[in-house]
Amino acid sequence: MKVNTSPISGTQELTPETQANFDILKTKINDSYQKHGYFNIETPSIERTEILLAKAGGDTEKQIYKVVKTTESELEADQALRFDHTVPLARYVVEHENDLTFPFKVAQSGLNFRGERAQKGRFREFYQCDIDVIGRDSLPVAYDADVIATLLDTFNDFNLSTPVLARISNRKILSGFLEALGLDKKTKEISNVIDHAEKVTPEKTKMDLEELEINKTDVKKILDFIELKGNRSLIIAELNNLEINNETFKAGVYELDQVLYLLESVGLDEQVEGDMKIIRGLDYYTGTVFEFILPEYKNIGSVCGGGRYENLAGFFTKKSFPGVGGSIGLTRLFYVLNEKNLFNFDSQNLLDYVIIPVTESEYDEAFNVARRLREKNYSATVVLTDKKLSDKMGYAAKVAKKGIVIGEAEIGATSLTARNFTTGENEELNIEVTSNPEDFWAD
Amino acid sequence: MKVNTSPISGTQELTPETQANFDILKTKINDSYQKHGYFNIETPSIERTEILLAKAGGDTEKQIYKVVKTTESELEADQALRFDHTVPLARYVVEHENDLTFPFKVAQSGLNFRGERAQKGRFREFYQCDIDVIGRDSLPVAYDADVIATLLDTFNDFNLSTPVLARISNRKILSGFLEALGLDKKTKEISNVIDHAEKVTPEKTKMDLEELEINKTDVKKILDFIELKGNRSLIIAELNNLEINNETFKAGVYELDQVLYLLESVGLDEQVEGDMKIIRGLDYYTGTVFEFILPEYKNIGSVCGGGRYENLAGFFTKKSFPGVGGSIGLTRLFYVLNEKNLFNFDSQNLLDYVIIPVTESEYDEAFNVARRLREKNYSATVVLTDKKLSDKMGYAAKVAKKGIVIGEAEIGATSLTARNFTTGENEELNIEVTSNPEDFWAD
Repeated sequence: MKVNTSPISGTQELTPETQANFDILKTKINDSYQKHGYFNIETPSIERTEILLAKAGGDTEKQIYKVVKTTESELEADQALRFDHTVPLARYVVEHENDLTFPFKVAQSGLNFRGERAQKGRFREFYQCDIDVIGRDSLPVAYDADVIATLLDTFNDFNLSTPVLARISNRKILSGFLEALGLDKKTKEISNVIDHAEKVTPEKTKMDLEELEINKTDVKKILDFIELKGNRSLIIAELNNLEINNETFKAGVYELDQVLYLLESVGLDEQVEGDMKIIRGLDYYTGTVFEFILPEYKNIGSVCGGGRYENLAGFFTKKSFPGVGGSIGLTRLFYVLNEKNLFNFDSQNLLDYVIIPVTESEYDEAFNVARRLREKNYSATVVLTDKKLSDKMGYAAKVAKKGIVIGEAEIGATSLTARNFTTGENEELNIEVTSNPEDFWAD
Repeated sequence: MKVNTSPISGTQELTPETQANFDILKTKINDSYQKHGYFNIETPSIERTEILLAKAGGDTEKQIYKVVKTTESELEADQALRFDHTVPLARYVVEHENDLTFPFKVAQSGLNFRGERAQKGRFREFYQCDIDVIGRDSLPVAYDADVIATLLDTFNDFNLSTPVLARISNRKILSGFLEALGLDKKTKEISNVIDHAEKVTPEKTKMDLEELEINKTDVKKILDFIELKGNRSLIIAELNNLEINNETFKAGVYELDQVLYLLESVGLDEQVEGDMKIIRGLDYYTGTVFEFILPEYKNIGSVCGGGRYENLAGFFTKKSFPGVGGSIGLTRLFYVLNEKNLFNFDSQNLLDYVIIPVTESEYDEAFNVARRLREKNYSATVVLTDKKLSDKMGYAAKVAKKGIVIGEAEIGATSLTARNFTTGENEELNIEVTSNPEDFWAD
């Protein structure tokens, strides 16, 4: 009979109080995305495996969860749980192209699934809240600024007790820089080393570069390059000072300049920085790349990231859908914010009012008072346990901020008294309590 | 290269416009549940199979989706997708008992999964939005009224263009009635026949009862019994008129009376009815049972249902957790409401404002105007395509209700003109457009 009732490892299960905080964060994200003009869509959690495998590779493929009906004796490999929102979005855009208005500003918030090895702060089932702008054939770089501004505004809506910084780069800058050094054949390997530079010592990064058979002069140049960072005027000046005569490099600098300009001009200048250490994965992104961090909590790592990609749906169609997007890993973000206690908002999860009928005879009146309060947009519940009044009061103070007792004296009253459980103060409410002549429990 | 990009059958995938309506419905449900004092929780989609199979049986077991990692060559039968919210809730209550306040009023909204055979209006992946009240050891029947009132209020918030009716019975009434006839050994089979009575002809129901080797007099009594329905005073009088001297029967009638009394006393008297045809499954429910229908669209069937159960978590613990709950099958409900066109709300999904900069030189001003509008809680987007103004205007009218053009003339203006795309009327907005002396595109 003793059954293990814990949730499976790598999943989030919260008490009602903590869940309320999670829900506040989720609602803030969705509201912010909508306010910034991103239209919400939802794709199924289950996709054909061939769709998911079109993009997946390496570790991701190993982490895919397949789904099979229990009655099927053999593993039918045709359906699986999505591991991100990007592949389903690509399928969606191709499938519904004629119903969409391009550039398509789209938001997706939902669960994704990865069979990761369970460890602290790693989830197998987790919410990701994405925005993307998808163009048809072309998409101006100003949309990159739109995505980053939206995500920063969203983080600012969280009202955290610690600042948020967007670190921004452009993949063309590094590509052009390496082209100019004649190292473009090693771009992938070098990017990989830079991507890990913040997780290891500077000596290790140097060694890793040298192991790629890059000469010491160039290693030095790369190490100097990835230290470049700062606000728009600083980073653009530093990059120009390198005097690199390469078209890709110049195009990247121009795009970064434009993105930083727009972000600074909307008052986000304290929260954005050009930073040549930002890489974001290896193959997918082609222009702007960004990561958000909490500078006072650097070891949390990135709390949001994204970038520009040349073609969303290359696996599914010959048409060209360039895009830019970003993602908040909500489950992990909530986990770390909670752990570091960075929320500023009320975590009590209490209802506005609880109505306490003294006996069953006041149930109907209590129901009606709750109804009137809800009409005024308050949350309200009625205590319906057949316990002593003192027990009911104890319950009441656990679930709501204010309590209203309805006894015989209140029947027919034209106003009611609500007690604030925290301050002990009373408040008068203009609610009439109409008596019910045929009370059920009267006889 | 030609890939099938349709979503898998039995899943919901909507265009952004239709998705907006779905989201409105979902938000209305969650808001209403919270306003009625039900605390939201979320359990993982993936559970240990042994947990799910503790309750499942028959068809449900056959429909369970197991999940396996792709690299596992053999089917590991230890994890599966939840098929309803009840089993995870039972596990949750046992696991988190000490963190909960009982009676625990709880709401759950999320995806459930069943490997049903795909057919019109049947879903393999679907939202269910549940509320339950869980007691410890006991739970007064007034909570049954609380659940039904909450669900009716929720439906009323939908503002549908057709009425909603709650049909209510109590399993004890039928049980006692059959006990009195000496037919209690056939309660399960008879319940099954009654449960299907509305899907077949009266003759077929009669035949089905006769096949259970019930004598003609008793068949007649059962057939008369299941026709009983009406408002509180009517149904209670009819049931009392049967003069059945059975304690179970009397207890059921008393409970039904109490539930109908409370519902009628909060002004839901037009929307509730006692109805002896309501059974709701066979083994699970032990007292109050209910189903909501749209009386003008009877063939849609039940749009919400639930009832009272003796013990939520009997599979997992020896402790007693009696409960009452109800569920809105949101995905199916949305499907049928959409099909019958029963929504009264705006289905356009347009943003409040779209800002149209004439050239790149006005991008920063346009970003700032959008920002100011969002501060006033409007949704706003900026058109950033490098197209002709007429093309931008065409796009603008597709995504928002009102458009604001920002050209050279608007820079430095102290107010702006917004054009309503539907009425053609103009509106003055008190938004200053500050010029940027170092415009990026100026040189």
